[in-house]
Order: sequence, then C-alpha cells, then structure tokens
Amino acid sequence: MNSAVLKGLKPAVAYVLRLRAAGDSRKALDGFTQLYRGWNLQKVGERGYSARMEHAGGGVIFRQLFEPVSCTYTYLLADPGSKEAVLIDPVLETVDRDVKLIDELGLKLKVAVNTHCHADHITGTGLLKKKLYGTKSAISRHSGAKADIMLSDGDSITFGKHCLNVRNTPGHTDGCVTLVTGDQSMAFTGDALLIRGCGRTDFQQGCSKTLYNSVHTQIFSLPGHCLIYPAHDYKGQTVSTVYEEKKFNPRLTKSLEEFVKIMANLNLPKPAKIDVAVPANLVCGLHDV
Amino acid sequence: MNSAVLKGLKPAVAYVLRLRAAGDSRKALDGFTQLYRGWNLQKVGERGYSARMEHAGGGVIFRQLFEPVSCTYTYLLADPGSKEAVLIDPVLETVDRDVKLIDELGLKLKVAVNTHCHADHITGTGLLKKKLYGTKSAISRHSGAKADIMLSDGDSITFGKHCLNVRNTPGHTDGCVTLVTGDQSMAFTGDALLIRGCGRTDFQQGCSKTLYNSVHTQIFSLPGHCLIYPAHDYKGQTVSTVYEEKKFNPRLTKSLEEFVKIMANLNLPKPAKIDVAVPANLVCGLHDV
Repeated sequence: MNSAVLKGLKPAVAYVLRLRAAGDSRKALDGFTQLYRGWNLQKVGERGYSARMEHAGGGVIFRQLFEPVSCTYTYLLADPGSKEAVLIDPVLETVDRDVKLIDELGLKLKVAVNTHCHADHITGTGLLKKKLYGTKSAISRHSGAKADIMLSDGDSITFGKHCLNVRNTPGHTDGCVTLVTGDQSMAFTGDALLIRGCGRTDFQQGCSKTLYNSVHTQIFSLPGHCLIYPAHDYKGQTVSTVYEEKKFNPRLTKSLEEFVKIMANLNLPKPAKIDVAVPANLVCGLHDV
Repeated sequence: MNSAVLKGLKPAVAYVLRLRAAGDSRKALDGFTQLYRGWNLQKVGERGYSARMEHAGGGVIFRQLFEPVSCTYTYLLADPGSKEAVLIDPVLETVDRDVKLIDELGLKLKVAVNTHCHADHITGTGLLKKKLYGTKSAISRHSGAKADIMLSDGDSITFGKHCLNVRNTPGHTDGCVTLVTGDQSMAFTGDALLIRGCGRTDFQQGCSKTLYNSVHTQIFSLPGHCLIYPAHDYKGQTVSTVYEEKKFNPRLTKSLEEFVKIMANLNLPKPAKIDVAVPANLVCGLHDV
C-alpha cells in the first residue's frame, strides 16, 4: 500500500469519523462509500494506462477477439450474475468461434451490435440471430442499415447490471457510434478512433471535419484512464487509453486544419470487400447466407 | 456501489472506528488498509473469468501485443510507480513497435524474457538489448540458449513492486517456463498451454507425457480465475482462464494415455522458420542482426 493510497484514504476515514461522532452511522457509511468511490477513481487515474482496470461498479466478463483477414476486433461483454451478454462488431467468418465461446461460458447473447455499417467485412449479426435464438441486432438509426434495435445518441444497451451508453461519433460514416461502459472505464470506438490512428473519411458519407469534432467532443472528453478498444488494428496493438490518444495520436493531436489536410492526402486503396460488404451489412449480413 | 461492496466495507469501517475510539489513529489507518486489501482480494475471486482483473497488490500496466506472421503474443508488464517493465516473448519484426510503446509510456525495460527457445520466429531480445540500454535477456537454464539471466524453477523476475514467478513447464521443449504474477492472477504459459490447445511435442526435445504432467501440476494447480496468456493463438482468441482450460481444453482434459495418442497423431508440418529461428534464438536472436 503506497503513500498515495494512504493519502487518499485519510480524508475518507476522517469524514466517516466526523459523521459517526455526529451520531449518524448510516450517513457515515454512505459518505464513506462516496469518498471511497472518488478515491478509487482517482487511483485508477493514477494508474494511467493499465489495460486491466477493474470496473468501479464490479466485474464484467470481457473478451477481445480478432479476425485476421479484415483485422477486426469483436468484443464480448457479459454480466457474471445474469449471464446476459453483448457482442460488439461480430464478423461473419468467426461466428462459429464466438457462438462456441458464448456457449462454453454459459452466456445468453442479448444484443449483437455494430458500431457502424462496415465496408471491409460482412457482419455476423444476422447469422448470430439464426444460431442464438433471442439475439437482437442493433445499429445506429443514422446508418441506413436494418436491425431490430435502431440506436440513437444517449441510448443504453443493458446486460444484467451493466450497460453500454451510445454516443454518436460520425465522420467515418454518418452512422458511427462509440459504446461506453456505464462507469466510463471502456469505450468501443469502432472506426472513429483507432490506436494512434482513425477511420478513413473518403467514402460512405465520410467527413474529416465531422470526425475530428466527434472524437474531440465525444471521446477525448472521457476520463484519461478510459480504455480505448477500436474495431480494427493493423499493427498487433490491442488497447489504448484516452490519455494516450490525446497525447500520441499522430492525426488527432493536430489542429482541425492539419487533420483535414492529412485525411485528404491518405490516398488509400478502395477496401477489397466494399461492394459486397456494404450491401450485405445494410441487412445484417444476411443477404446471401 | 452494490450490496456486496457495502457488505465488504462495513466491517472495515467498524474496525477503524473501534481503533479510533481507542485513540490510535495510525493503527486505525493501517488496520483499514489491511481490511481493504482483504476485501479487494475477495472481490477479485468473485468475478470469475473477467479478463480485466486488477492486481490485488495494486495496478500493473499491462499490454498484449500480436505479431501476425507467427501469431505470437508479446506481453508488456510494468510497475506504474517505478516504471520498471518486463517484456515477454518479443519478436524481432515488432521490436520497433514495442520500443516506441515503452518509450511513449515512459517505461524502463528491465528484462526481456523468452518462455522458451522458439522455433517459429526469431526473438527480439537481442535487438531490444541494443535499442534499450540496460535491458537484460532471460531464458530457462534448461533451454540451451544464452542469456544474461538463466532462469530456474522458483526464481522471480521483479519489476518495481511486482514480480513474475518462474515455473518449469517442460514438454514442448526442455526449457519451457510459465511465468506467474505474484498474486497468481495471470499466467504466461508460452507454448505449454494454449487456449483450447497446447504446444506440439514432436521436435526440440518434445515429450507429450512430460507436457501433460507440467500442465496438470504447474498450471492447472493455479486458481481457477487465473488468466491464461499463451505465446500464440491462431484463432483470434486473446485470453482464457485456468477454470476454462480445465473444463474445455480438448486435449488436456483427456487421460494421459489419450493425450499421448492425440499428440502422436497431429501430423503437423515442420515450422517454416525452424532452421533459421532455433539457431538464432540460441543466441538471443542476434546471429545475423
């Protein structure tokens, strides 16, 4: 137990003692709880870039899964109590792997959600709905795609006692969302913010100015210790933090003008699968399954 | 703050109040600290198979990194206080990425350790020693390879207030080790135990009977919630737990006789890089750098 922790505990204990002296032990406990929570958050902040932070609100089952052809990350989150689960950005080719894991862990898939209408791979949501009865698909109402749940900014996807809050982060596409855990310890940023990068803005309603604004107002406003889990990584990186991206992202640390210029000069090739993937993803990836 | 947390805090607060009443605030604070730590440990146990557990002894900086050609995971662990870091199983081709991350996070690489003498890729330890002055290489003394630190069963690699404990887990090779964090919340199993698999035993002193014994006595004896981080994964899986592998590993849940039969009939092709990688890895990957 280091000195910073001791320093953090002292006022909490002192506060409890004052309230206790005033004869209100229930209020003392509540007060302590609040102070503990504040101290805990501060402690998390101090830890900076740990990829293994606990949720302030208790445990969540969490798995990061990778699809190597499109370099897509799929994320499984579940509540250990109710076993309700959410799968973020599943890929058609890895549905069987994901179903097997969900089954082994004894989970019930409640929602399969896409952060946007992907251009580089076909989503697994439609196939998951067929394989796991009761699963609902979800996507932003601004995506133009069909799904059981059409998400708006401020909506929540709940699973047991946990939730993911929806933040609109357009710019890569009009229908991009970032999903943030209730305690703001994790953000699933889709293609809006990548590790030391960001999604391209040269097709599918892309707009670099909009993307810059989305990341700065909706993602960089999260706590510095908040873990960034993107939809893709091409360099074998698995996680970052808001703190790190605000400090080291080579594009988004620039001014808006510089960012727009960088994005206009990327000269990226057209995604190999775009003509197949986008039409498929507009209907949950099920057009030819 | 849920009821389990409140329940856990109540005796801690009561204890502080009793000691305070006895006039010893220093002891009260120490007592609270101990109770907090105990409660925190209990909480970790309850969470089962979360991949994001914090260390009971405080946070550790942790990053999982991937090299896609050999499907190797490199792990960065560091102490947030002292900034001392350990890198497990670095790959030659991704040394620059790893050095950049270590630099950005303000870390000092103390040890670059291999879980064994790899046959499928050239280690990055030698190059890391050249790029990051003061880094020591480490490998098992049974590996036949050269390094600054020759590891034996029971040794510890310390970084700040954290440590990795060495367990000999031969079978894939004679010099395979599993590195276990001090609080037994994470095990870096190299090629001994993979997620729903294990390392092959048909070359480099491989012995399936030895491997079976290693996994059962040295890894399956760890707590069920202990996270399994292997040296490789070929299906996009990033983490497992002792609980899961004891229950779902298709090979190691079998009897010894069945396991030996399975391993004798894998008929795997020879690793593409073995004739280059093994001689290089015997000298820290530096034979032709």
